[in-house]
Amino acid sequence: MSERGAETRVPASAFLAACRRQSVAHRPIWIMRQAGRYLPEYRELRSKVDFETLTRTPELAAEVTLQPLRRFELDAAILFSDIMTPLQGMGVGLTFEPAPVVRVPVRTRAQIEALPTLEPARDVPFVLETIRLVRRSVPRAAPLIGFAGAPFTLLCYLVCGRPSKEFAPARTFLFAQPQEAERLLMRLADAMAAYLTAQAAAGAQALMLFESWAGLLGVREYTRFALPAVRHTLAALKPLGVPLIYYLNQGSALLRTVAGLEVDVVGVDWRSPLSEVRALLGPDKAVQGNLDPAALFAPPEELTRAAAGVLTEAGNAPGHIFNLGHGIWPDTDPDAVARLVDFVHEHP
Amino acid sequence: MSERGAETRVPASAFLAACRRQSVAHRPIWIMRQAGRYLPEYRELRSKVDFETLTRTPELAAEVTLQPLRRFELDAAILFSDIMTPLQGMGVGLTFEPAPVVRVPVRTRAQIEALPTLEPARDVPFVLETIRLVRRSVPRAAPLIGFAGAPFTLLCYLVCGRPSKEFAPARTFLFAQPQEAERLLMRLADAMAAYLTAQAAAGAQALMLFESWAGLLGVREYTRFALPAVRHTLAALKPLGVPLIYYLNQGSALLRTVAGLEVDVVGVDWRSPLSEVRALLGPDKAVQGNLDPAALFAPPEELTRAAAGVLTEAGNAPGHIFNLGHGIWPDTDPDAVARLVDFVHEHP
Repeated sequence: MSERGAETRVPASAFLAACRRQSVAHRPIWIMRQAGRYLPEYRELRSKVDFETLTRTPELAAEVTLQPLRRFELDAAILFSDIMTPLQGMGVGLTFEPAPVVRVPVRTRAQIEALPTLEPARDVPFVLETIRLVRRSVPRAAPLIGFAGAPFTLLCYLVCGRPSKEFAPARTFLFAQPQEAERLLMRLADAMAAYLTAQAAAGAQALMLFESWAGLLGVREYTRFALPAVRHTLAALKPLGVPLIYYLNQGSALLRTVAGLEVDVVGVDWRSPLSEVRALLGPDKAVQGNLDPAALFAPPEELTRAAAGVLTEAGNAPGHIFNLGHGIWPDTDPDAVARLVDFVHEHP
Repeated sequence: MSERGAETRVPASAFLAACRRQSVAHRPIWIMRQAGRYLPEYRELRSKVDFETLTRTPELAAEVTLQPLRRFELDAAILFSDIMTPLQGMGVGLTFEPAPVVRVPVRTRAQIEALPTLEPARDVPFVLETIRLVRRSVPRAAPLIGFAGAPFTLLCYLVCGRPSKEFAPARTFLFAQPQEAERLLMRLADAMAAYLTAQAAAGAQALMLFESWAGLLGVREYTRFALPAVRHTLAALKPLGVPLIYYLNQGSALLRTVAGLEVDVVGVDWRSPLSEVRALLGPDKAVQGNLDPAALFAPPEELTRAAAGVLTEAGNAPGHIFNLGHGIWPDTDPDAVARLVDFVHEHP
């Protein structure tokens, strides 16, 4: 290969390779909520502009998406947005306090049928424009991850209105109105399929579904309600040919069930060791995770020990993307993130 | 056997037999938080007396303990109290809002050493008197369960002050101040050993440790911090000869680790099917659980189906105590509880 050829070749992405369970030169790492409140440059911007405006203004959303990649050697960018943004685009009234609060909970058959069909280019054009802007200027040609909420997780917010520790109204809804629950889930599954398809068309190079709350369900209810809905969305995305990531929070009891899903990567919280996660998911899934966000508050040598523990559990088989097990906490010291990123890159 | 002999014999307790994995004529059932806000007779009492006074007045606490046993054919009573009551007895300032809020979080070595040793007869005499009162008048000679918080769960409240979804300060404490965490856990383990020993001496016939928050920990942190502390308490209780129950909330990833604990019964939340729980715990543990509290909001035939699902998963081997997977919700219809108790008793 000529020197010139080496210079112009776009370097292969360790992140995309790991998604496909290919060997990588270094272990890729990115961090859930890497664009956000723990960064001083984000807080400065937020002091002038409210959260919703940030998500709806492509120049600002792109800027926030890129902030963590300028500061740290992260291996992927993730769109700055909220899982409720497409529902807002469909006319669902909500506020961010900062958790999303749906003004009028959706619980009746009439309300479910009245939800309009999502047309991304009409309803959330600013999201697609953000993706195009990020792709033009992302450092190190880091791939951009697009994302959406998984149907059951969106149902939780729609049915509860105000989120709560137990999401009691959402769980009650499944038991008391199973037919309505199934119908709402399928409508959300269709909407998220259209949303993520549009994100890929705009330039997103991997697509992630956040199942933040299915871990509230027993295996029986997860299998009856949440699983068919996310499977429906995934079936529509498979022909796109981009890696698909399913993040399952609090889902230690669900891993065997999730193993059957057609996704490339399963992201998990910090509860189950990755050796166990990989054993339950089988050899045809990559895994993403799973350091406890609390570990970033440890002294440097203790943080290193905890991160090394994740690497040991993940093992050396291809197909591990380092991440936290849940979103980074707002009071985290950015210097701890820098130490973590360096440590992971130095220990393939 | 003479008729007179049959009349005076105290009937064997299905609950205690199941704790010891003995065969039973009917499947025992009791319900976490069975004494509480979903009962009109409880709400009537609470409209006149605040929660703390209820827990500190033996006649009232005994009355509340007995209320659900008069209404339903429950197989066990459980002391009406709070896991924070003994800490209050040790001088920790707290309020119930209704979740316990510790006024000055305990985080320094000096604060930990300054906690006085618990002397139950001096610090919480009203708890012991409640137990004696209940034993005198409990219907059907139902056994009385005494209880305490497991050390790590108590640490969560002490370190956080105000409880939160993530209990972030408690998890941070483990990573940032591991030596202080270990010391606080051992002090709490000693206190709960003394507390439960006194409860057994006063008449409690089974002892339960509530590990409501260890499910927030990864296996590594659970094994390092929470496990040695609860093992320390259990070792002190074993010579008492009463059944010991360890309730593990959100602990699907921890079951294999918990299998090594010297307890008779492990109670679990609704996430993992009981067949899997039993397989992971092994044949020398009874199990308690694990219907989702949300199922009590289903129409009767759906509730029956869900309860039958729990029975099927539990199987027919001795050693299953039916319960919910978590405390009953305050807005539950008492009639649904009556239907559940009858259904379980009719399906041994």
